[in-house]
Amino acid sequence: MTTGPSSVPKTMRAGVLVAAKSIELHERPVPRPADDEVLVRVTAVGVCGSDVHFYRDGHLGDWTLDGPLVLGHEAGGVIAAVGAAVDPSRIGERVSIEPQHPTPTSAETLRGAYNLDPGIRFYAIPGTDGAFQEYAVIQGHFAHRVPDAVSDHASALLEPLSVAVATARKAAFAAGERVLITGAGPVGLAVAQVARASGASEVLVSDISEARRASALRFGATAALDPVGDAEGLAGAGVDAFVDASGAASAVRSGLEGLRPGGRAVLVGMGLPEIPFPVTRIQNKELTLTGIFRYANTWPAAIALVASGLVDLDGMVTGTYGLDRVQDALESTADPHTIKSIVEPQA
Amino acid sequence: MTTGPSSVPKTMRAGVLVAAKSIELHERPVPRPADDEVLVRVTAVGVCGSDVHFYRDGHLGDWTLDGPLVLGHEAGGVIAAVGAAVDPSRIGERVSIEPQHPTPTSAETLRGAYNLDPGIRFYAIPGTDGAFQEYAVIQGHFAHRVPDAVSDHASALLEPLSVAVATARKAAFAAGERVLITGAGPVGLAVAQVARASGASEVLVSDISEARRASALRFGATAALDPVGDAEGLAGAGVDAFVDASGAASAVRSGLEGLRPGGRAVLVGMGLPEIPFPVTRIQNKELTLTGIFRYANTWPAAIALVASGLVDLDGMVTGTYGLDRVQDALESTADPHTIKSIVEPQA
Amino acid sequence: MTTGPSSVPKTMRAGVLVAAKSIELHERPVPRPADDEVLVRVTAVGVCGSDVHFYRDGHLGDWTLDGPLVLGHEAGGVIAAVGAAVDPSRIGERVSIEPQHPTPTSAETLRGAYNLDPGIRFYAIPGTDGAFQEYAVIQGHFAHRVPDAVSDHASALLEPLSVAVATARKAAFAAGERVLITGAGPVGLAVAQVARASGASEVLVSDISEARRASALRFGATAALDPVGDAEGLAGAGVDAFVDASGAASAVRSGLEGLRPGGRAVLVGMGLPEIPFPVTRIQNKELTLTGIFRYANTWPAAIALVASGLVDLDGMVTGTYGLDRVQDALESTADPHTIKSIVEPQA
Amino acid sequence: MTTGPSSVPKTMRAGVLVAAKSIELHERPVPRPADDEVLVRVTAVGVCGSDVHFYRDGHLGDWTLDGPLVLGHEAGGVIAAVGAAVDPSRIGERVSIEPQHPTPTSAETLRGAYNLDPGIRFYAIPGTDGAFQEYAVIQGHFAHRVPDAVSDHASALLEPLSVAVATARKAAFAAGERVLITGAGPVGLAVAQVARASGASEVLVSDISEARRASALRFGATAALDPVGDAEGLAGAGVDAFVDASGAASAVRSGLEGLRPGGRAVLVGMGLPEIPFPVTRIQNKELTLTGIFRYANTWPAAIALVASGLVDLDGMVTGTYGLDRVQDALESTADPHTIKSIVEPQA
Repeated sequence: MTTGPSSVPKTMRAGVLVAAKSIELHERPVPRPADDEVLVRVTAVGVCGSDVHFYRDGHLGDWTLDGPLVLGHEAGGVIAAVGAAVDPSRIGERVSIEPQHPTPTSAETLRGAYNLDPGIRFYAIPGTDGAFQEYAVIQGHFAHRVPDAVSDHASALLEPLSVAVATARKAAFAAGERVLITGAGPVGLAVAQVARASGASEVLVSDISEARRASALRFGATAALDPVGDAEGLAGAGVDAFVDASGAASAVRSGLEGLRPGGRAVLVGMGLPEIPFPVTRIQNKELTLTGIFRYANTWPAAIALVASGLVDLDGMVTGTYGLDRVQDALESTADPHTIKSIVEPQA
Repeated sequence: MTTGPSSVPKTMRAGVLVAAKSIELHERPVPRPADDEVLVRVTAVGVCGSDVHFYRDGHLGDWTLDGPLVLGHEAGGVIAAVGAAVDPSRIGERVSIEPQHPTPTSAETLRGAYNLDPGIRFYAIPGTDGAFQEYAVIQGHFAHRVPDAVSDHASALLEPLSVAVATARKAAFAAGERVLITGAGPVGLAVAQVARASGASEVLVSDISEARRASALRFGATAALDPVGDAEGLAGAGVDAFVDASGAASAVRSGLEGLRPGGRAVLVGMGLPEIPFPVTRIQNKELTLTGIFRYANTWPAAIALVASGLVDLDGMVTGTYGLDRVQDALESTADPHTIKSIVEPQA
Repeated sequence: MTTGPSSVPKTMRAGVLVAAKSIELHERPVPRPADDEVLVRVTAVGVCGSDVHFYRDGHLGDWTLDGPLVLGHEAGGVIAAVGAAVDPSRIGERVSIEPQHPTPTSAETLRGAYNLDPGIRFYAIPGTDGAFQEYAVIQGHFAHRVPDAVSDHASALLEPLSVAVATARKAAFAAGERVLITGAGPVGLAVAQVARASGASEVLVSDISEARRASALRFGATAALDPVGDAEGLAGAGVDAFVDASGAASAVRSGLEGLRPGGRAVLVGMGLPEIPFPVTRIQNKELTLTGIFRYANTWPAAIALVASGLVDLDGMVTGTYGLDRVQDALESTADPHTIKSIVEPQA
Repeated sequence: MTTGPSSVPKTMRAGVLVAAKSIELHERPVPRPADDEVLVRVTAVGVCGSDVHFYRDGHLGDWTLDGPLVLGHEAGGVIAAVGAAVDPSRIGERVSIEPQHPTPTSAETLRGAYNLDPGIRFYAIPGTDGAFQEYAVIQGHFAHRVPDAVSDHASALLEPLSVAVATARKAAFAAGERVLITGAGPVGLAVAQVARASGASEVLVSDISEARRASALRFGATAALDPVGDAEGLAGAGVDAFVDASGAASAVRSGLEGLRPGGRAVLVGMGLPEIPFPVTRIQNKELTLTGIFRYANTWPAAIALVASGLVDLDGMVTGTYGLDRVQDALESTADPHTIKSIVEPQA
């Protein structure tokens, strides 16, 4: 391991989830990068809905908390040390972390879908700690250099933006098309921004929360709809592409009804594992539907979108928290006025 | 209208569905082709599951029988007369009927998805008679010339083969891939044949009927599975593409479980309008799913597949019936040893 | 034919190309719409490079002037009368003309590529007059209604924008990508605008003219390059997509060199029928290359891009001319400060 | 390194290209597998045209012989030893070698196009020895297990079949389509077989050699054409897809002329680095063109095609040679009756 001029300490503070609803600040050894890894001094970490699930419920989908776990997988920072196989000139580089570690030789990785590698490890999934701590390790090629035009907050939020970029590719957004997005949480807003940046002439966003609808109009939406009051408008929208970012069965149903013949749907929101599904509509209109599991090969596009000003991530930050306030950061997401809370581990 | 040397009669026999479970033979005027249409002397008509639905239940999906209706939409024959705008040299030509009549100026038709045209008319859908009659009209370009290598029976069965060709395109079958098909009725078998002709190295077909599993092994399947006994085999198949040709919710679920990460599913079978749907699986494996509504631009490929010997339609015919036995032909489909029954309107 | 309240006159003025470099103003009968056509009172017509070719040389590619011909195929106007099969309530509607008339039954038309129909007729191609005249006819569905937000000039210029939309689809522009365009004439600028509207984070445009490079920076380009001075920058650009809008062999070569492995090229510019082609590069980098022949199914997207403000067509108009000055309009294109000249046939 | 029961010797024989037209048999140390590699006891190696180029000319494209080089990159064998990170139970496994070694972290590798990785190493390219020797090393995941149904010869020839599989994917062969292939050398024949296995109803193959045309008819072609005598037939073929496997400029021209509007071309044959290119035709017919650089992710499909009997590789072997006759094997390719010569390094 090679370290930079400002020497790396032996220990660090980490915000550890020790049980559901209980985060404790622990002193832990600073992790040591493997040969192909770098050590990142973490400057900002976004709070994601999946962090909140683990925090509140002790589980997320099929994963269950089986010991202390550091949450946080939306992270940016500065390279503080590098493993033996990484160019030491990278020390000091500002980077955004792509928080996954796939097996390099699986069929999925080899064909470019490394996010689907069955042996993948991922930040803040039991077995791998996340980034609510002062330092974190990641393979060198997944520590993506960010230009000065990308702030520390934005560097962290390139992760949810990557979800939106992956969604945009699956949804095949094209210039001059009309798009419907259900759910105006941070992912919905990121998708709305990418849809608009992709030339969608109309970006309809629906959410049951008035506060979130107001946010939508600031981040990509050309119109914000109340799914209850505007149900007919939704069903009759006739859009080219539909993205569900809510995880609600009723939203998926509305969105599929709102697609034109041949329209494309992408399910991003996580909710019930199973929902009632309108097969006949899928068939009669030859709708295409798929889902998203994180992302692969999205950081370069995400960085470019932010650096060129086409997407605004900084504006989505509604609160910042020191490492001693991770729990407050997690709780803050209950407020619909919260878009994105950021933990600053050095503070 | 220009007619051929053997003059067209004034009237003809038609097998008319007058009420659920009641077909009557009526004497009716021979239809007169519009300017862009041809009159076809029908030689063979396949019996389809949707015909049986109308016959048994008096309705099919959202369509309800609202008066006498001639069923039958899988038809071949010989051009007997042509409208003013059609080349009269086509009289005498052996043709396969593509039984649809889309609006030429809808957005869907203009972009090549004329099957999705909201104003389309289709054989044997209330408002448009089908082909269980001696003569039928169709637009000239939808009376597709067939070569001598395509028999009269095969000419009729190019219609269900077109469903399979449309499915193959959506499923993106590719050489060396593994395919799973649930349901071994005539459409399932046609899909199996096209899958195998498309280079699938394994074509797994499941059906609850032992007779149908035996048929599958003769028409494209490399292995036939019992969905009950081989449930684990299905779920663990890890195939590249899955086609449901059964319409059964349990089959759709099994097939989606049997797909590899990134696998493609096409729903062809018609059953319940709504089924429980494993959203989490769709997301975690980034499965892609779509449905089929008939076909567009498939006849040339279907003709080529049969004429070149890559697909066998004649072998799928298990019974033939004169026009006075349309009802028997419809009833014959209840026997799982029936693959495809053919009505010969001139007999 | 049904006409509007302000009666359509019997005759009209037309700017007729009677021989190379000779446009005469003729009095001609107002054309009569066929049953499925509308008569458009033309308000604005853009001047295209292909008009200039015919005007200067008397031929364009394989087409040769074989009699008097009215040029102009970028046209907008107001419906003044309709054929028997068109809804008369459309009289008075502001429309943009899609200036083609394909055969509805060709294989190409049926699969949605009606621009490739071998029997197609097109404005200002010998056999079919264009729009440098007071009135013109077009099939009803190719007279696209434009909203108030689209000016008369923009309505005309939806045609070159359609070329850009067709190009964008072939080039598969995606958000966060880098694009190179060679040639900053009106089509190059329209492509640059659509690329930027499609989320390209960098849009490099090269042109040998300093005036055109300056225009590029106002219409979509993030950087303008001199192909002579910046040759190395071009070759090393490593862009995701390359569009040639110049027709110059050297530009095509530079652009192909500037593509990253797996990059996509679209050739739009018309020049020499044959150019030297770097096969080894195409192979070693698995570049994909295609060309554009006009457009199909582009008007809805083009209208939406302009109406939503994502593309600016009005700003590209650098001069307007009355019908008596068609020749001046054609000559004006020699000035590199000219972006787009407009003929106003009612003036 | 772990070795199998039959101990691996210290030295081995290798057929070394020491200068153009000069192969010598040298005694060399058996290579030692790196941690992630396996050592393969080579049983069969196909002779490729690129081997012949190096042998005859001392260079291939941009690569020049700069020292002794072992040729041969189409190889199969048996795992004799494994590196520390590979499961030792693989010793004794029959494998086909995918002869490339990409960088795992390049942008190209990460998106699944590892064949385009700029840092890739490849068998028999200066810097990396090939397989005309008794033992060779390869990364474990690129030693693909073959079933008993794949012979040793076929195991070696999965490499050229992989070129054909990669070509088929780029050409998007689909059932019922018509395909033209120019050049009936081994790659052309492999492409013809995959085209036919992919459901092409017509596979037209052209070659100037009568012997090769005769071969074509045994391996996938439905018709064999003489490019001189059948020039008009070629140009008017109107096929859906065209593959050049000849590298001849005249063949590329003919094939592009023979494509239908919207047709797809793939250039596989290597010849002159630059050819005259019909831009106007590419544009007017919106043809799509690309090239192939080896392959990625093709072995599973190639193995499945052979194991399931859809492609015949054994029949393509026209001669076998011991390791002391590598030079004869290379010279044998000059005879048009030679399809594929095999070197057996253990003989």
